[in-house]
Amino acid sequence: MDVAALRASGARAVLMTPAHQFPTGVVLDGERRRDLLAWAAAGGLVLEDDYDAEHRYDRAPVPALRALAPEGVCYAGSVSKLLAPALRLGWLLVPRRLREPVVEAKRYADLGNPVLAQLVLARLMDSGELERHLRFVRRRHRRRRDAMLRAVAGHLAGARVHGAAAGLHLTVTFDGAAFDDTAVAGAALALGVKTHPLSWHRLRPGPPGLILGYAAGPAGEIEEGVAVLGRALREHLQDHRH
Amino acid sequence: MDVAALRASGARAVLMTPAHQFPTGVVLDGERRRDLLAWAAAGGLVLEDDYDAEHRYDRAPVPALRALAPEGVCYAGSVSKLLAPALRLGWLLVPRRLREPVVEAKRYADLGNPVLAQLVLARLMDSGELERHLRFVRRRHRRRRDAMLRAVAGHLAGARVHGAAAGLHLTVTFDGAAFDDTAVAGAALALGVKTHPLSWHRLRPGPPGLILGYAAGPAGEIEEGVAVLGRALREHLQDHRH
Repeated sequence: MDVAALRASGARAVLMTPAHQFPTGVVLDGERRRDLLAWAAAGGLVLEDDYDAEHRYDRAPVPALRALAPEGVCYAGSVSKLLAPALRLGWLLVPRRLREPVVEAKRYADLGNPVLAQLVLARLMDSGELERHLRFVRRRHRRRRDAMLRAVAGHLAGARVHGAAAGLHLTVTFDGAAFDDTAVAGAALALGVKTHPLSWHRLRPGPPGLILGYAAGPAGEIEEGVAVLGRALREHLQDHRH
Repeated sequence: MDVAALRASGARAVLMTPAHQFPTGVVLDGERRRDLLAWAAAGGLVLEDDYDAEHRYDRAPVPALRALAPEGVCYAGSVSKLLAPALRLGWLLVPRRLREPVVEAKRYADLGNPVLAQLVLARLMDSGELERHLRFVRRRHRRRRDAMLRAVAGHLAGARVHGAAAGLHLTVTFDGAAFDDTAVAGAALALGVKTHPLSWHRLRPGPPGLILGYAAGPAGEIEEGVAVLGRALREHLQDHRH
């Protein structure tokens, strides 16, 4: 986030994931945070998508921007990464002046959300079960992340890992190399291992890379998956050697 | 539905509730049905909102237009009137040629619907429980409708009842009278009885009227509510006598 460029653009609102950017895994911190909040205080609106802030493994999660500037930030949270995306449950904390227009726009958009899942979530929150679940998956994700880091070091020669110890995925780039990451991801998929090639998410050219999720399977599967990926990568490089 | 006017308009699609129009309670039948289907066969698209077709009390429900012209009708069903609107569950049956664009538009609109309520509904359907529930509420609604018809005859002098023996509401008009149905509905609401004044739904001028729901309460409450409404109407007429 280049706040000077944002200021120069004249945009009135900006969509951000300050706690954890996908796919780079970068956390907005320190000076940029302060700079962005100054822009908001001068009349800008930050849409803060806090989609997986609770998954931080090395320290306490960064506080939400919303907590520092409730009238300059429209905060969106979700249980998609915490319970399941198929619940379609999330929430907005909207600056006071925007509350009524947002409620009205939402009503016309969908006539409201199913109430049963919301009641169940409220019960999970009240009872402390959600907090217990979060502590459980945070420990589990941390173990799986560590397993993936070991597997990447062992099987993906030249891979550089990006981002904070957070979220549910690793992004790796192969900085010195020149190969088609989409072809490698395709070859790995044919062998049963699904990843995102970094090219899918690039706005500017750069080194090839892969996005690797570690939340869905146990450490053994992660090790095996990354090994398969390493094989696919080596075979691709061999086939396309000059 | 004036199909000649529809044809002349050049419109490519029309939204209909052929089984039961709100608020008139009219059922699209016979010649108009055939005429509309001929228009669809010539390339028109009917969006059939079948929102409460299962609530027919005097005979079997009219078959859906969709059953007669699957490629000319986009059918929408819902459990809003059968179980609860707060479940936000419904379905579309789309002509084959429109299936992919509709699925894609829906995906971009909302990223999909919550899956748990859908699984519960599928279980209710498979097990026959939904059909049993429908038979139960159909009998109950029929009793409540009869109670309301008696109460209207006893308490609302000059009221004419419209529409088929279907749905969850009655529409009544006061054909010889001239009074402000919005004011009467407001007075009744102040006494605890909520109705829709027909004026809210009118596109053209016409006699005053009221829309009376009977599905939500037992016969005794319905009788009492209509009595209150009759009192509000008489007092309004007395206050505004020329």
